[in-house]
Order: sequence, then structure tokens, then C-alpha cells
Amino acid sequence: MSQLSTPVRAHRFLPGWVTHYPRQHLLSDVLAGIVTCVLVLPQNLAYALLAGLPPQAGLLVSIFPVIAYALWGSSMTQAVGPVAITAIVTFSVLSPLATPFTPEYITLAATLALFSGLLVWAFGALKLGFLSDLLSRPVISGFISGSAVLIVMSQLKVLLGIEVHGMDSWQLFLATLRGTPHWQPATTVIGVSALLALLFFRHVLGALLRRFGLAASRADFVVRLMPLVAVVVATVAVVALDLDAQHGVAVVGAINGGMSGFRFFVPQTGSLGLLTIPTLIVAFIGTVQNIGMAQALAVRRRERIDANQELIGLGVSNVVAAFYGGMPVGGGISRTAVNVSAGAQTPLSSVVAALSMLVILVLGTAGFTRLPLSVLAASIMVAAVSMVDLAALRRAWAYDRADAFALLGTATGVIVIGLQWGIALGIGLSLATLLYRASQPHIAVMGRIVGTEHFRNVERHGVETIHGVLFFRVDESFFFGNLRSIEARLSYEIQHFDSIHDVVLVMSAVNRVDMTALEALTEIADDLHKRNIRLHLAEVKGPVQDRMAKTPFWKSLNGRIYLSCNDAFELLRQNRA
Amino acid sequence: MSQLSTPVRAHRFLPGWVTHYPRQHLLSDVLAGIVTCVLVLPQNLAYALLAGLPPQAGLLVSIFPVIAYALWGSSMTQAVGPVAITAIVTFSVLSPLATPFTPEYITLAATLALFSGLLVWAFGALKLGFLSDLLSRPVISGFISGSAVLIVMSQLKVLLGIEVHGMDSWQLFLATLRGTPHWQPATTVIGVSALLALLFFRHVLGALLRRFGLAASRADFVVRLMPLVAVVVATVAVVALDLDAQHGVAVVGAINGGMSGFRFFVPQTGSLGLLTIPTLIVAFIGTVQNIGMAQALAVRRRERIDANQELIGLGVSNVVAAFYGGMPVGGGISRTAVNVSAGAQTPLSSVVAALSMLVILVLGTAGFTRLPLSVLAASIMVAAVSMVDLAALRRAWAYDRADAFALLGTATGVIVIGLQWGIALGIGLSLATLLYRASQPHIAVMGRIVGTEHFRNVERHGVETIHGVLFFRVDESFFFGNLRSIEARLSYEIQHFDSIHDVVLVMSAVNRVDMTALEALTEIADDLHKRNIRLHLAEVKGPVQDRMAKTPFWKSLNGRIYLSCNDAFELLRQNRA
Repeated sequence: MSQLSTPVRAHRFLPGWVTHYPRQHLLSDVLAGIVTCVLVLPQNLAYALLAGLPPQAGLLVSIFPVIAYALWGSSMTQAVGPVAITAIVTFSVLSPLATPFTPEYITLAATLALFSGLLVWAFGALKLGFLSDLLSRPVISGFISGSAVLIVMSQLKVLLGIEVHGMDSWQLFLATLRGTPHWQPATTVIGVSALLALLFFRHVLGALLRRFGLAASRADFVVRLMPLVAVVVATVAVVALDLDAQHGVAVVGAINGGMSGFRFFVPQTGSLGLLTIPTLIVAFIGTVQNIGMAQALAVRRRERIDANQELIGLGVSNVVAAFYGGMPVGGGISRTAVNVSAGAQTPLSSVVAALSMLVILVLGTAGFTRLPLSVLAASIMVAAVSMVDLAALRRAWAYDRADAFALLGTATGVIVIGLQWGIALGIGLSLATLLYRASQPHIAVMGRIVGTEHFRNVERHGVETIHGVLFFRVDESFFFGNLRSIEARLSYEIQHFDSIHDVVLVMSAVNRVDMTALEALTEIADDLHKRNIRLHLAEVKGPVQDRMAKTPFWKSLNGRIYLSCNDAFELLRQNRA
Repeated sequence: MSQLSTPVRAHRFLPGWVTHYPRQHLLSDVLAGIVTCVLVLPQNLAYALLAGLPPQAGLLVSIFPVIAYALWGSSMTQAVGPVAITAIVTFSVLSPLATPFTPEYITLAATLALFSGLLVWAFGALKLGFLSDLLSRPVISGFISGSAVLIVMSQLKVLLGIEVHGMDSWQLFLATLRGTPHWQPATTVIGVSALLALLFFRHVLGALLRRFGLAASRADFVVRLMPLVAVVVATVAVVALDLDAQHGVAVVGAINGGMSGFRFFVPQTGSLGLLTIPTLIVAFIGTVQNIGMAQALAVRRRERIDANQELIGLGVSNVVAAFYGGMPVGGGISRTAVNVSAGAQTPLSSVVAALSMLVILVLGTAGFTRLPLSVLAASIMVAAVSMVDLAALRRAWAYDRADAFALLGTATGVIVIGLQWGIALGIGLSLATLLYRASQPHIAVMGRIVGTEHFRNVERHGVETIHGVLFFRVDESFFFGNLRSIEARLSYEIQHFDSIHDVVLVMSAVNRVDMTALEALTEIADDLHKRNIRLHLAEVKGPVQDRMAKTPFWKSLNGRIYLSCNDAFELLRQNRA
């Protein structure tokens, strides 16, 4: 698709939005950037914790990786940064290798960002963006819903202030359930209150405000502002009542801000082996999510994205993230929504948001020190709940059971056997569904509608046929997976109809014939030849004919090649007469 | 396909060939059975050694598993027993777990036969025979050729009498190469002479005999007899010159014959975990090979096979093999060829061959004791060389490069990274090729050939069009993998043609629309709607329409559904006028 898209990158080094910046958007971009920076602050902290990293990692990777994406990405409004899916995937792949929040784990996360960034960049540079088509939407939807359940499971312990340890999501969750008697009252009160408040803000407040006459866009803004308000209120409560010191409420703690987080680290070669599979997973999931979202956004804004350029942007962004913050980043649904609804028109908005974050970090982050973690857990859980897409399951169930099972299978796989195997299962289900469907082609025996040149299924229409001549149409390309069905059906029809002496294979729906199919066709032709049945072809498509005309099959064919079914019908009837 | 096939199993417990045995075939079946038993004797010993098992295993599994297959299988002439592919696969999956020829290894092999037999039986009972369609012919061909190279590599040490040890095929082969200075003169002379003689018999003798006026069928029989002659001559040479005792030529040794090999063993539960992957591999490869061969035979003999019944036969056969002989068995190309050319008409021939083998075992196997192993190695190598199918590569290369690469990739994978990963790579390549092709559909913008009702590609034919109306045909089902291409091309055409206000999506080649595609179509329709472009459908197939008619997409469509392109053309032209 890249060769067809309008060139986004007119300049050799700088993207079009920099060299030809539309001045009229300047004010709205700057305002949108500042608003976005502030509104996504709690998210940044929360997703870092979800990934098993210190909260400041989320703030740090909201700076230079964002600028990198603005320069190399292809979407005008997508906001990159810490996102829920990438965070839970990071946690899932790294927590078996090291204990979260330890220096060892943090180094692994940075190395993972570097490796997966390089890999995603390579996908883009090698124009492998089509790899993301390995997953169907029901599978992606199942993956996201399953991940959301894992996220909720993982945050319960933080919400209730339970101290547990474990290697993987299920161990942690079961330990949390066993630990519920030890919940911390103060933490739980703050966390559950925040949870209820956030659910109220998200699901009730907007409608309420609109009912009281507020414009939809303003109501929307207020709703988006409220999580920040909740964070501020909770922090003030901790400070006022000294909840952290007196009642053991876990808080964010001192943030190592400013430029001090920059590291010129050399990844250990040992990590390469350890991180091979995690890198592949993070890169693949990042690819799928980012392309999918960028595409959805582009459709909405009548723009074209270049999938491969998008990957280059995401890749560079992650490589940069490795050196400052050390957390894999991605394109986020909610942060992009904030950016768009704040009025962003070009990636300048993201650059402004990044610079605002840098200013906040330099001015000081003392305000976050006593922010209770349970409030962040509540915000993660609310975001996760909204990721569960039951409507997609209902739609798939109504339209196509195979797709619905693929969705359910992937979601169940992610929850039960883990994210890594869940995504593998999803790919398997996508391909199995595709293969299974293509292996059961629709096949029709055809006849001519009397008085016309139209040919239709003999079972559905009153048609004329020629005795001893079988018009056989397969509504699918011939490939290794469906030959068995085709051969079986052809045998059956030849036995079923009396004394067949001519078979016309109607190839109007055959877009390709692979090597396996060509050999099988050759065998079928030989077999029919021995039985004194002639095999004719009709309505062969140009590209199919070009390819087959060079093969022994074509030369050894004992029948003819007809342009249309009608030509075949007329000539075979004359022969007969 | 099973519901379409003629019923092979009329009786509830006994197959049709038993209850309605055609008497006129009795003599030819009995003779064919005896001949087959004798001619395949060297093979049976050789493939047991190839599998890393004592030679008698190959004789023992030629009895009851063969009878089991005759009763439960669906092919009339396929001969089951020790085969090269199954043997090398057994060696490949088990040699990393235990040292070949040790009691531990022998028990593992029997357990593997049991488990894979049960699994294959389950495939058949659950009607999962279509799983074998996961592999295209080029991939199967590549797998067999690659395996043949591995077989030759593995037998070199036996041919030259070099003692080496190692875990996998490559270690053994490299050790063999390093060990060449220590080749045993007597063994090497016998082995290499046998190798040259067998190559001569196979590739020259037949043509020579026919040139001297022998009938083709007799020449063929002589050629098939010669390996046995070579074995006898070599054994006589060993006995006459006392080569085993005096010159260290390795020989078969005493064979534990008769009924003593029967074991009622209880597989250890620990083996289940250890053998999970080996079982899957052996079952899958057995399935693919057996179905493929049974089908090829059935085509040649104008019979139908029931793929699932075939799997049940193979499964039961392996379960029986586990208890007497303890070696996985399969349908063999060369042993089936022997059976067919000896005149077999029904599975009675196999039953006679099995009983003949039992008689040989009971009467005594002293004759094999001093048979030199290097002669068996030579016969394995000659069989392996004939499995390398360069012609398939040439054909694929000429017809379709993607298939040729799949073949080469699988063969290289098998040789370099091992059988297990090679077959996984093959499946991956099969599916990747399929997906890649389907993701690049042929798309045409169409117009009407003046004065007709025929619509053709505007780029290939002089056609009339309506200004502002785009006839857009996609020659592929809509599915998750090709939406990106379709959307991109549609966008391009809308931009390319001036002021489009109507798009007619011609769906004559669309056999299915999956959930992902349906959602994408809905988005495309919404998008076009916002741009004041109407989206019409034409030539929608019945099954596709039935399914889509229930969805919101159908209801929200702002255009019409036309039966034919011509209807759409006429009506849209009138609207325009």
C-alpha cells in the first residue's frame, strides 16, 4: 500500500508537518499539547507501575520517545507513551526473568525496549507491516479483552494494599486472593473510593453534565479532567491525614526527575538470548496495536497512513525510550483520545506535550511523592474494564460463529495460559479458521437458464443440461488445502450423473492455482482420460491461464479451453448432435 | 469427504473385503503375500536399525500391526510396516532422550508407538483427517528430500564401520567425518560393494533386462529380488571368510524371535511429558504420509479412500506395534510397490505376508545372525537417495517460485535445524504463502464492453464507463489479511478518478466475508457516506448475502444491491441522465 499513498515525507530528513507547518494550527496544537501532558500524567505513572517499573519511568518515556515518534511516525494525532497493553505484556514477559522493581528488572525492561524497538524499526524498514495482518479483528479483540482481565487481576493487590510475591500473573492473583484477610484498611478505603469515583466519572458524569445543559465537548473535557482531580484529592488526603507514615498507605515516593534518568547503557550480550522471545512478542503486539490504531485514526480523519513508516516511528521511539526511562512505549487509545479531543491537529501537539513534561520534571515532582499507589491501581482497573469489548463478542456470535470462537479462544488463552501463548493461540486460530473455510469450498453443478446465456446451480434453478456433460464450478482458488474436497465432489458427481463423457471445469472464481493443485489437476485429468472422459476448462482468468499455459498439464489436456460457459455449452451440444 | 465415499465397511466389525471376499483373487493374494514378506525382509531389518532399534523389531512389527491395518485401514493394497521416514523421525525425536539400542531407548520407542497410535486413532475418530492438508505438496516433497539426506548422513558410519556417539544427526555426522581415518576395511568393502551393486540393480539392471527382451513385469520382479540376493551373498561371504570374528565386521546378531517379543508393558507416566512433542510429530508425519500415499494409490486403482478410516487403521496398527516389536510403523512407498507389483488385490495379501513372517520367526532366524550391518546401511542409503525428488523442485521452480522456496526452505530446515523444526517451518511456509497470496488480491476497475452486457477490466479492454461511477471488483474473498490492500486500492481509485459519487463493489469473486472484513466494510461505507459517495453492491453470492443481510452494515448501506453489473450500470446511468 505504501506505493499508493500520498507522500507524507516530502523532505528527506524532516516530515511534512515540520517543513510545511500549517500556521493556523499553531495555537490549537500548543494548547492541546499542554492539556494532554497534564491529563495523561496519572496514566504515565500508573502504567509504569503496571509494567513493574518505578513510576518515574512513565514520566521519562513521555518526553524523548514522543518527540522521536512525532518526527518519524506517520500519524498526525496518535499519542505515543506508556500504554496498558504494552505495560502488561512487558510485565508478563519479564516477571519470570527477574523480580519487578529491582535494578535487574529495570535494566531488562530498558533492553527489551531497545531490542523490540530495533525489531519494529526493521519490520518497517523491510516493509513487513503486512505481518500485522496475521491477526483478525476478533482475535485482536479477544487478546485485548483477555489482557484487560489480567490487568485487573494484577492490580487487585495494590488496590487493597496486600503484599504478595509470585512469578506470574496467576501466582500473584492466587496469592492476592489468599492474602485478602491482610488487606490494609486505609489503602483499601482510598483505593475503592477512587475506583468508585472513577467509574462514576467515566460512566455517569458525562451524561449527567450533558443533561444539565453542558455542551458535549465540555462535558467530555470535564470527564477527562476528573481522574487528575481524584489523584490530587487522594494526595491531599494522604498529606493531611499523614496516611503513609501512620497507616502504611503505599505512595509513589521520591521521583528521580530532570535529566538524571539518561543512561548510555550497553545491553549485556547475555540478555539477547534471554530476551529473544519477549522481544518478538513485544514487537509483534506493538506492531499490531499501533498499525491498527493509526489506521482507525486515519480513516476518521480522512488521512492515509503508511504502515511501514508507522513502524519506523514506533521503532525509533522505543529505541529512544530505552535510554531515558527504559520502558517500552506504544500508541495509546486513551491518550490519543485525549490529544484529539484537546484539539491536536499535527504532531506538534505531541512535541509540546513532551516539552511540558520535561518542564514538570525539571521544576520538580515533589507533588507526586505522596500520591497513593492504590489510586493509580484504581485508574488502571477502570481503564482495563473499559478495554473489555463484549459488544465485539456479541457481533461476532451473531455473524460468524468461527470468528466468535476465535475471539473467545484467544481471550481464554490469554487469561489461562498467559499473554505469550494466548497471542500464539490467536494467530493459530486466525489461520486455522482461514484454512478451514478455504478447505470447504462452495461447489456447484451448473446448467444454462433456458433462453439465456446465464449459467446457474442446477439445484437452485430450473436449467437445461446436456446429457453426459458436467459443468462443475468451484467457488474458491485451488490450493493444497481444498483439493481433497474438490476431488471428492467431482468423483461423486461423475458417479452420480449417468455416463459422463465431458467435464467442464468452470474457473470463474479461481483466482490462483498453486503447485499442489496443479499436480492434483494433472492427476485428475489423467484419471479422467483413462476413463474416456474429456476435461475442458472454461472462464479461466488471465493470470491463471498465463501461468498454467506453460505446464505439461495444459499440453496434455484432452479437452478444450472455452472462453465462456456458453461457448462450451453450444459446442458440446453440437458435438453431441 | 467421508459422507460422499462409497461405504467400505459394510459390516459393523469386519471390513467388506472379509465379509464379501472376492474368491477369484485368493490365489494372487496368497502368492503376493508370500513374495512381499520375503522381499521386504532386508527393509524390515534395515529400518529398525535406522530407528535406533534392534533389527528384530522390524521383523516383529511386520506381523500383528499389519493384520490390524488390514482389518481397520481403508486402502486395498497399501502395505504397512517399518518405513524410512517414520524410522528417521523416531530416531530424531528419541535420540536426544536416550541412547539408541539401549533398553531405555527401546521402551521409549514402544511408548512412542503407543501414544502416537492413540493420537492418530483419535484424529481419525474425531474426523480430523483434514489436518494433513496443513502441508502443501512442495512442503511434503521438501520434507522427504531433506529427511533422505539426514538418512544418508546417519548411515555413513555403519557403512564404513566407524564407531561414533552423539546426541543428534549433525553431531553423529560430524563425528563420522572426523572418524573416517578409522574406517574398517572389511566392513567398508562389503558396504561399498553392496551400495554400488544396489545402485546398479535399481538404476541400470531393469533397463538392461528389458533390452535383452525380458517382459517389463518380470524385469521389475528381478530388480526387486536383487536386494535380497545381495543380502544373501554378503551373509555367505561373512560366513565363508569368518569376517565378523576375524575382521570385526558388525553383523545383525542373534534374533529374539517367535512369540517371545510380546510384552504387556505399562507405559510410565513420566514418559507422557517427555514424549508429548515426539508423539505429536510422529503422529502428524504419519498422518500426512499415510493419507497422501493411500490417496495416490486409490486414484491409481479407481478406488476411494476414507481419510479418517485410514487414520483409524494406522492408529490401531501402531498401538498393536507398541506391544510386539515396539517400533512405530507407517505406510511405506517401496513395500506397497512390492505388494502391488506382486499382484495383491485385497488386504488378504498383507495378512498372508504377516503370517509368513510369523512362520519365519518361529522356524528360526539363524540365517540373519551373520548378516553384515553395512549391507543394510547400503540398502537404506540407496532407498534414501531415491527419495530425493529434484524433479519436484524443478517443476515448482518453473511454475511458482513461492512453492519452490517453500520446498527448498523445508528441505534446508530439515537438514540444518532438524526434522521437528523442519516440519514446523514447512507448515509455517505453507500458511505464509497462502496468506501472502490472499493478501495481495487481484483488483480491477471495470467498464462495460460497448454493445454487450459484459464487464471487463478498464485497463485491458476498450469499455464504456459512467462519469463519477466506479465499478470496483476484488477477485478474492474478503478476510482479515487482504483488507489493507483493498482499502488502499479503493482510496487510490477514488482519488485517481474525478469526482466519484457512486462506487459499485462487484462481488462476483467474493466467496466469503469474515467478521474483520464486515467491520472494515462498515467503516468504508461510513467513510464514503460522509464524503457523499454512495456504496452499491453487485453480484453478491447467495451465501454471502444471506449472512450479511442480518447485519447493521446491510441496513446502513446508502446505496443499492444490484443483481448484476449491467443492472447497476443501466440504473446508475439513468440516474445520471
